[in-house]
Amino acid sequence: MKTILILGAGLSSNMLVRYFVERADALKIKIRLGDKSIATAAAKVEKCAQCTAFEFDVFNDLQRNREVAKANLVISMLPARMHPVVARTCIRYGVNMVTASYASSEIRELDFEARKKGIVVMNECGLDPGIDHMSAMQMINRIRDRGLELVAFESSTGGLVAPGFENNPWQYKFTWNPRNVVLAGKDGARFLHNGKFKYIPYHKLFSRIETIDVPGLGEFEVYGNRDSLTYRETYRLHHLETMFRGTIRRPGFCEAWDTFVQLGATDDSYVMEDTENMTCRDFINSFMAYRVDIPVEKKLSLYLGIPEDSAMMGRLKWLGIFDDTKLCVPGLTPARVLQSILEKKWSLEADDKDMIVMQHQFDYIEDQKRKKIYSTMTFIGKDSYNTAMAATVGLPVAITSRLILEGRVNLKGVQLPIMKEVYEPVLEELAEYDIRFVEEEVEIPMDISSL
Amino acid sequence: MKTILILGAGLSSNMLVRYFVERADALKIKIRLGDKSIATAAAKVEKCAQCTAFEFDVFNDLQRNREVAKANLVISMLPARMHPVVARTCIRYGVNMVTASYASSEIRELDFEARKKGIVVMNECGLDPGIDHMSAMQMINRIRDRGLELVAFESSTGGLVAPGFENNPWQYKFTWNPRNVVLAGKDGARFLHNGKFKYIPYHKLFSRIETIDVPGLGEFEVYGNRDSLTYRETYRLHHLETMFRGTIRRPGFCEAWDTFVQLGATDDSYVMEDTENMTCRDFINSFMAYRVDIPVEKKLSLYLGIPEDSAMMGRLKWLGIFDDTKLCVPGLTPARVLQSILEKKWSLEADDKDMIVMQHQFDYIEDQKRKKIYSTMTFIGKDSYNTAMAATVGLPVAITSRLILEGRVNLKGVQLPIMKEVYEPVLEELAEYDIRFVEEEVEIPMDISSL
Repeated sequence: MKTILILGAGLSSNMLVRYFVERADALKIKIRLGDKSIATAAAKVEKCAQCTAFEFDVFNDLQRNREVAKANLVISMLPARMHPVVARTCIRYGVNMVTASYASSEIRELDFEARKKGIVVMNECGLDPGIDHMSAMQMINRIRDRGLELVAFESSTGGLVAPGFENNPWQYKFTWNPRNVVLAGKDGARFLHNGKFKYIPYHKLFSRIETIDVPGLGEFEVYGNRDSLTYRETYRLHHLETMFRGTIRRPGFCEAWDTFVQLGATDDSYVMEDTENMTCRDFINSFMAYRVDIPVEKKLSLYLGIPEDSAMMGRLKWLGIFDDTKLCVPGLTPARVLQSILEKKWSLEADDKDMIVMQHQFDYIEDQKRKKIYSTMTFIGKDSYNTAMAATVGLPVAITSRLILEGRVNLKGVQLPIMKEVYEPVLEELAEYDIRFVEEEVEIPMDISSL
Repeated sequence: MKTILILGAGLSSNMLVRYFVERADALKIKIRLGDKSIATAAAKVEKCAQCTAFEFDVFNDLQRNREVAKANLVISMLPARMHPVVARTCIRYGVNMVTASYASSEIRELDFEARKKGIVVMNECGLDPGIDHMSAMQMINRIRDRGLELVAFESSTGGLVAPGFENNPWQYKFTWNPRNVVLAGKDGARFLHNGKFKYIPYHKLFSRIETIDVPGLGEFEVYGNRDSLTYRETYRLHHLETMFRGTIRRPGFCEAWDTFVQLGATDDSYVMEDTENMTCRDFINSFMAYRVDIPVEKKLSLYLGIPEDSAMMGRLKWLGIFDDTKLCVPGLTPARVLQSILEKKWSLEADDKDMIVMQHQFDYIEDQKRKKIYSTMTFIGKDSYNTAMAATVGLPVAITSRLILEGRVNLKGVQLPIMKEVYEPVLEELAEYDIRFVEEEVEIPMDISSL
């Protein structure tokens, strides 16, 4: 019997845990599921004889060491900042580890130690990062194998609400960690466009958007996602002219969200005064100059140039940001206040279905013609528990973990799922769950400098 | 013989070192001046028999311990992030310490240890913070001693160029650390305005400005300086309706500087690609969308709404930001690139005179009338070496240090110069150097809610 230790039993672990519960006999495994809330963990494994749920505190050294020492594989679904302490423990006991998070510099620094111990610390195995890497590398290698040159690569992903359930003016609800949604984009974006390096600061990110069209689903808008430049190295694409990663939203979202960015309402670096007695209206007003002769709505309209009868102002009003409702919670940062306001409006109803949209664009040259492949994956969830997000994050983590557990991955050190031995079997198995890409190829003008 | 250890021999130490050199005999002191450049240190003390200049590396534990152990007082003019390691060493050996920097949370945490050792770690003893605290507390206590209630306090300071030397379209030159000027305002501003807490994020700081008038010098503009709210506690002013600290510039500066903030050109969090081969023009262009049909100047004008023939565009062009000059330095952050461009244009000429402007506004109620005291200090430097900045930063540090050395300050722990026993003698001695405040009192309308 082998033991899989899964740390973190939140929303994203739903499908991941079920994957192993369903295969516990076949794989001859025991599953230990730890979470800071034992109730959350227990609910996920109640009918599984080989499973144990327990209360877990990552900062309890004794417990962390004990749990990791008796595991054959550790899957950390904890917040990303907690991965390094888990990874160091895995290295100490020579236990392989898998996460769905970006490989931070702190994690990357463990590469040598992990290799020395002969283990793999496999990161970015979820959706984005995760499925995006795997599907992109598959196509990039196919193009490479044909002896052709890739000149542009763009990849965008969105966690959205399925058509029919987009029943609010933002066409958006929280389908993953609300805090991460509020803080998304903080570091701005860096990318390569037609041979030019481009840098967008956070406060311009949501006004520098592109539009994409997804067959059958219509228009979306895309804002830049972090540092795309590092992926030239990761994907070994040093001669690209364009390299861009983006986040997908429905049209109008970015413009309206930018209001909060411009106000400073997404700041998480300081605690506001007296949030206990603050109303939503006070909150918005605190980011604007003192002026009592006009209402807050009018002031906002003048400050940021938002027409008072626009759809954008409608989106803001719908959120209740001008209401006189008290927050009643002390010691909050602006980002925490905003999150609490949004959670009242953007939470999924029990029967709501979410939707993942991922679209890659690959430009390559063949016979002196420039061709573009659109590769698109859309996936719709079952309900607010069995979400598309939980499936597309949890399943690739689960499948990658199983491959490692079965000794079918021969990589050591800090890794991403960009090698054929990982992405081929993972993508193949994901297709069984209907997580698959549809491709379309078109010819585009050779000179794209006017685009 | 007592020993004063002065760490850091940069521009701000000029007057400070001279103060002690001139009094070495009278005070019966030896002066040890350490700097990472021994040449810089040696030049400042070459004619002083009681002085020793030496190469100093704050991270050399052995040297730091040895130097602090044999000192009776340590003055740290090093970059603020280096103060904690010096302070901990001072605590170990029971040596008093003085700095001109903001007391960081890391420094504040040493309060208990410092008290236990019976030493004082005196911070914020320069100009701003420094003279601003001292002069404000003097006036606040005067008003308090009359049994009157202070309702508003605003305090602004600028390191500027003296009239007659403001010979560029920005009416600005670097008179202190250029890096700090480029990064100024990063944390935005927080303050209290007519009973309302106000928060301004960095990207709105330079467009949310106020105008002040200084008799004889004309108009200036003021942008918010960090967190003013903490000073309610520091100054024991809990019933204030308005509490604001600002930074002073000549009109037009903030609007033009905001261009760099909006572009993201003051970002210091990442290294740009290929700065070695980057031109000034490339630098500016990298923050804007790809588009080759219009020149960079036009693109900037459209992106940020700057009229092409405006004074603002004139200021930008004068800096050379559109030039095809190569930077020739690898591995720079945007802030470092911008600094290198500005240093070519904003450096003081040898005979240039700089100027300090500080203005406090105190509102109080007397006989049911609202009165405002303007308290203004202006000070002009002699030349580009004997700057007003070096005098107004160095002299209060020197005088405070002398008071501590002579045992005339009975404070222990982490302190600011807000006690009468410190500010009265310091302000009195500063007046001998013509660093003094001029006061004017006016009556203003009782109801200021319409202002």
